[in-house]
Order: sequence, then structure tokens, then C-alpha cells
Amino acid sequence: MTMTENSILELIGQSQSGAGSGSRRIAALSVGIGDDAAVWRPRPGFETILTCDWFLEGTHFLADRHPSRSLGWKCLARAVSDIAAMGGEPRCFLLSLAMPKKRAGEWLANFLKGLREASRVLHCPIAGGDTTQRDQLLINVTVIGECERARAVLRSGARPGHAIFVTGRLGEAEYGLRLTQARGKNLKSGDARLQKHRYPMPRLEAGAFLARRGLATAMMDLSDGMSSDLPRLCAASGVGARIDQAKLPCVRIARHDASKKFDPSQLALNGGDDYELLFTVAKKNVARIPKRIGRVALTRIGEITSEKKILLVSQRGRSQSINNQGWDPFR
Amino acid sequence: MTMTENSILELIGQSQSGAGSGSRRIAALSVGIGDDAAVWRPRPGFETILTCDWFLEGTHFLADRHPSRSLGWKCLARAVSDIAAMGGEPRCFLLSLAMPKKRAGEWLANFLKGLREASRVLHCPIAGGDTTQRDQLLINVTVIGECERARAVLRSGARPGHAIFVTGRLGEAEYGLRLTQARGKNLKSGDARLQKHRYPMPRLEAGAFLARRGLATAMMDLSDGMSSDLPRLCAASGVGARIDQAKLPCVRIARHDASKKFDPSQLALNGGDDYELLFTVAKKNVARIPKRIGRVALTRIGEITSEKKILLVSQRGRSQSINNQGWDPFR
Repeated sequence: MTMTENSILELIGQSQSGAGSGSRRIAALSVGIGDDAAVWRPRPGFETILTCDWFLEGTHFLADRHPSRSLGWKCLARAVSDIAAMGGEPRCFLLSLAMPKKRAGEWLANFLKGLREASRVLHCPIAGGDTTQRDQLLINVTVIGECERARAVLRSGARPGHAIFVTGRLGEAEYGLRLTQARGKNLKSGDARLQKHRYPMPRLEAGAFLARRGLATAMMDLSDGMSSDLPRLCAASGVGARIDQAKLPCVRIARHDASKKFDPSQLALNGGDDYELLFTVAKKNVARIPKRIGRVALTRIGEITSEKKILLVSQRGRSQSINNQGWDPFR
Repeated sequence: MTMTENSILELIGQSQSGAGSGSRRIAALSVGIGDDAAVWRPRPGFETILTCDWFLEGTHFLADRHPSRSLGWKCLARAVSDIAAMGGEPRCFLLSLAMPKKRAGEWLANFLKGLREASRVLHCPIAGGDTTQRDQLLINVTVIGECERARAVLRSGARPGHAIFVTGRLGEAEYGLRLTQARGKNLKSGDARLQKHRYPMPRLEAGAFLARRGLATAMMDLSDGMSSDLPRLCAASGVGARIDQAKLPCVRIARHDASKKFDPSQLALNGGDDYELLFTVAKKNVARIPKRIGRVALTRIGEITSEKKILLVSQRGRSQSINNQGWDPFR
């Protein structure tokens, strides 16, 4: 596999031209890879959602510990998660990839495989990008999404008394990360404990459901961990929150990991990379929130308060402040 | 200046809220910095143009030789140039910035100053981005632009007999780069010879003029140099080209640089980073191309041919193939 200007992008693009759900939306791309820029036709009555995400060797992943197929999947999935967090649908993405020449063979083939899988599953075809050579792997992904006009769910709409919900289970990605850090390459790729760390699934269906029905008053995705992200939602809304520890849907630790003393509660509160949705719902609408959307559970975990504190209430009724211990690149 | 999540982006965003031409178009941004993603309202009847560009320390610039104000300007200007190359207008941009902590003071302040200047002059406000910490400066800029439906000018529309034009002068950026490489920091920031290398100006007015009137049959921006970029336009169009060397609007070398034996023709053919427009015009429309658009000259330099060769015809009438000697990160 040789690398020339655009050739990497074209490799990804080629696989889209066949049949399959990923190619359905390409009709909106008037101009794709190979020109100075892509040209995309927005849907009348919709707004455009724009997001970009760094995914850097050494900072966000380790090239020798993470299979490149999972990196291909994850770089797109985590950027698409920001679209889910607004209640939108992804439409297309731009890939900026800088890589060493030595990665041009098997590493790149598997990276592109994972990226194509994500592109197909998430209905998000490639529109363009930029590739260059570099001693380390640098990835930046821009995703363009859409939502019906004025339906995007922001972080700022939570009000005292609103119920707080999350999708899925928290701490699962951190569990997989810690196993990866401890054992390096000696982990089977099919190991279910690694699934969410390697192949996170943005909660597009849940996000769109909540946005379309106007059920979520505020929403964001949990990328840095609950203890970092909940304070952000509260700050944007000018409120506080009380989380019921017993209700947190925590990661389940495998029996043979019992000796390692994983604390599910701590993983759930401080673990990053889950890409679950955190959202708030006005009391009158709580009954309209289903138990599941698709296969993803929705769990009520607490309440928004007027006092600007973020409290965790234990099973015994004791409350303590949640300390921000999630991911912060500037710490 | 401390760095926290979003604080850098907010610093840029704040300056937009005031009066000035840059802020006019912010009305289209329903949601800006601070949420999971930006929400932007496309203009009815227009298509969206999408482009992203790497701008990396060591690859595209040297942090100790290039003033950070020029890096702030250039990272946006060069990405906006891809919008000009389609004949579009920029609407907003996303900034991905990874930087060492030590750059958080004066370096960052001047970088943001240059970026704000570009944002204002190019009418392209910031919509969002991603910031993280890193040992080297890594920049990626995504620009969102618009053009009237079906008016985008592609690389693929050149046909035999069409005249070839360029905007401005070629080789000016390369001249500035070579002076920078030779003298390092001992160059005055006001030195006119460095202007285009440090503060390139995307040819938005010319691009939009040609696109709106349907005058350009093919167009691209010269980012890697004529000898690299013209073959790309020809390949996309399935044609060849003959360039008249005597007509090339070459960089003017300052008298006191005469001893350094700069070859203006070589600089013009192989120098990158000019961000001038290269475009083709059907014969019947050549008379409608003005000598200047604003202050930017438009120069006819050759003709598209059916034979798929890229030839340079000297003043004596001898023709030779143009060898691709421009910038290629994978060479």
C-alpha cells in the first residue's frame, strides 16, 4: 500500500460506493474526496452540527497496545458521540491523519478496516480530509451532523427539580483501559471486558429520540468521566446536582478480576471514554422516558438542585462532594 | 493565561462578540463554543463546503523561526484558501490545538492575535474546536464555507483549448521561506519579502467572482507549488497543459538579494504556500476576465491541451516537461 496525497482518503472512499446503509447518505455529497474541498448539501429545515476531536498517539492511545482496527473505529465513534450528545444524526466526516511511513502496511489496512466499519454502522461516510507524514500517529476527525431546526439539546437547559439520567453502564471503558495498561498485548481481541474501551458505541438512537420528542432539557456525552462532565453540565445550566450512588449503573467486574480490587463506583464516577449520554428531564416528562432505547438502558440517577454543588449521596444517606477526577489534558 | 478545557477557544470567541465585520455572520451560529458541538444554520439555496488542514510544528512551520502571530494568521488563511479555490465564502471554523504548557503565555497571546486578525479579515468566526496538551505544537483547522448551489468550481472541468490563468505572483512565499531558513530570527517582522510566507491572503474575492459568473471551468489553489498542483488539475480533468514561461508572474527578487542567485522562474514553478488561484477559462469567456480583481492581478499563462503532458515553453520556443518538484509530504 503506497501513500500519496489523497490515496489514503480514496481507499476509505472507495468502500463507500458499494451498496449498504453507509452509502445511502452520500447523495448529499456533491463533491467528495479529490478536490480542494468537499461540497455537501444540507437538508432543508435542518441545522448543521459541527464537531472535531483530537486522537493522538501517546495522549489518547498507545500504538503498541491498541489494535489499529480499534483505533480506526474509535477515532470516528468518539467524534460522532458529540453529534449524539446534541440529539443529531451524523452526515459525513473529514479525516486528518499524520503517520509514519512504517505504518503504511498492515497497521493502515486494519485502521481503515475499523474506520470503514464505524463509517458504515454510524451512517457517516467520509467527505474529505488531509494526510501527511509524521513520526507519530496524529488523528483529527471532524464530524458534520444535522438536527431539526431548534431541536439541538444543549448543556444549559437543566433546572432544579429535573431528573438526571444516563444511558448504558458507566466505567466499562476505564475497566478495559486498566486491563490494557496492566497486560499490554496479552489480551484477546474478543475479550468482552475490552469492548467498550476499544469499540465504544455513540448513543445516536437515544440522543435523537430525546431530542425529537423534546424530552431532554440538557444533554452531553460522558467522554472525560461523570465527575468531570456533570460539573460542566451544571455550570452551563447554573445549577447543582445530587447523584444517588446506589442508582449508578456501574460496570460489572468479571469474577476472575475480583483480586484486583476494582471499585465499580470509582470507575463509574471517574472513568473516561464511556461515551454514554448524561441528560436531564423535567419532572412532568419522567414517565415518558422508556427503560431502554434499542438495547441501551436509561437509568435515573439523581436530581438537579438549585444549590450549586455536585453531591453524591451514599446508600446510608450520607452526602459528599464529587471531586473532579476525570480526564483533563491540562492537569 | 491559564489553559483549561475550552478556555483557549473562549478567548478567541470573546473577541468576536464585539462589533466588526467578523461578527456579522455569527448570527448563523445557533450554538458556539462551550457545548458538545457547534450548531450552524446553513443558508437556503446554498451548498456547504468542508475542508480541513494540518499545520504541524516541524512539518509546516518552525516554532522558533516563525512568529506565533503569523502562525495564528496562516493556520486559518491556508484552510480558507480551499474555500476560495471552490469559489465559496467562508462561514466559520473549528480549531484543534495541541500545545506545550510553556507556550501558554506570550506565544499563545500572539498566536490568538494573528488568528483573530485572520478571522476578522476573512469574515470567518470560530465555531468550536478541541484543545489538549502536547510536547509539540499541533494545529488542525476545519473551515465551513458556502457557495450557491451547483456553483462550486471543481478541478475536473478543464478542456483542451481553455486558457490557464493565475492570480497574483508566484514564488513569493518560497522566497520568504528561504530567507527565513537562511537567517532564522534575524529578520524584521515588517520585511515585505516575508509577507506572503507569513501572512498569505486567500483569494476569496477572485474565487467568488469567477464562480458566481460561471467563468472558471476548473480551479484550485496553489498550495504545494505549480509543478505539483497543475498536474493535479490536469489529471482531474483528463487533459494536459502548456505553460508560457515568459508569462509567469514571478516573484520579484530584492536587489540586495541578487548575490544569492534566486531563480524567480524556479521559485514560481516549485515554490509552495502561495495560495494563489490557478483556474481555466473557456475561450469565449477570456475577454470577460478582468486584469485585476481588487488589488490582485489575473494573468493568462498558458493553455489546456488534449495531449496529457505538462509542458513549459521557454521564450525561445523550446518546450520541456514540468517535473513535479513541489511539496509532497510522502516523498
